[in-house]
Amino acid sequence: MDPDQVAKAFVEHYYSTFDTNRSGLANLYQDGSMLTFEGQKIQGSQNIVAKLTGLPFQQCHHNISTVDCQPSGPAGGMLVFVSGVLQLAGEQHPLKFSQLFHLMPTPQGSFYVLNDIFRLNYA
Amino acid sequence: MDPDQVAKAFVEHYYSTFDTNRSGLANLYQDGSMLTFEGQKIQGSQNIVAKLTGLPFQQCHHNISTVDCQPSGPAGGMLVFVSGVLQLAGEQHPLKFSQLFHLMPTPQGSFYVLNDIFRLNYA
Repeated sequence: MDPDQVAKAFVEHYYSTFDTNRSGLANLYQDGSMLTFEGQKIQGSQNIVAKLTGLPFQQCHHNISTVDCQPSGPAGGMLVFVSGVLQLAGEQHPLKFSQLFHLMPTPQGSFYVLNDIFRLNYA
Repeated sequence: MDPDQVAKAFVEHYYSTFDTNRSGLANLYQDGSMLTFEGQKIQGSQNIVAKLTGLPFQQCHHNISTVDCQPSGPAGGMLVFVSGVLQLAGEQHPLKFSQLFHLMPTPQGSFYVLNDIFRLNYA
């Protein structure tokens, strides 16, 4: 499968899940997964999803501007680098963000998120 | 060694080399290295440095805002996620950017850049 297509499909799935059912993201992480969210380091699927579901807004919508993808080495991983804007309900201005996902293959032929780094790009 | 210190030292070395002697970056890449620069994919140290030295400006200065670092898996690699601004000589406004480096260990105990993804963050 074309890595760029895999990356694009992952990105669409990730953000549509984030925007509609944040707790559903748990399936995409594992115990060894790491999230760095605005500089805060969090490890493990349970802690990561607790962080994401605990963010102080209920409704949001991600609009993706760019998706870049590269293979990450012999283990079959894939780096997916995203830029876009995040619109929070009730806020006038969208927030620009960049996010990196390092996807690793699962034995079932799917991918999970080993590394996730999120930063807002303040104007 | 503390991964955050390694990441910070790498970032300082990379951008000070970029800003003073761009062709000196060749040592940081290898034949299998990949750069995605504003969506354009380039492979190999020689091609990458040709791209970077051929960028249409002579003098520039990177100011780093954030550096986030995570181990990338069992191969001993490290993901370094940078945000900052790039000031070009003669331009009034700095350009915001985000950049990802995937560093892999060398047999000599150093690191090289396996993956490099660069994006300007347009306001």
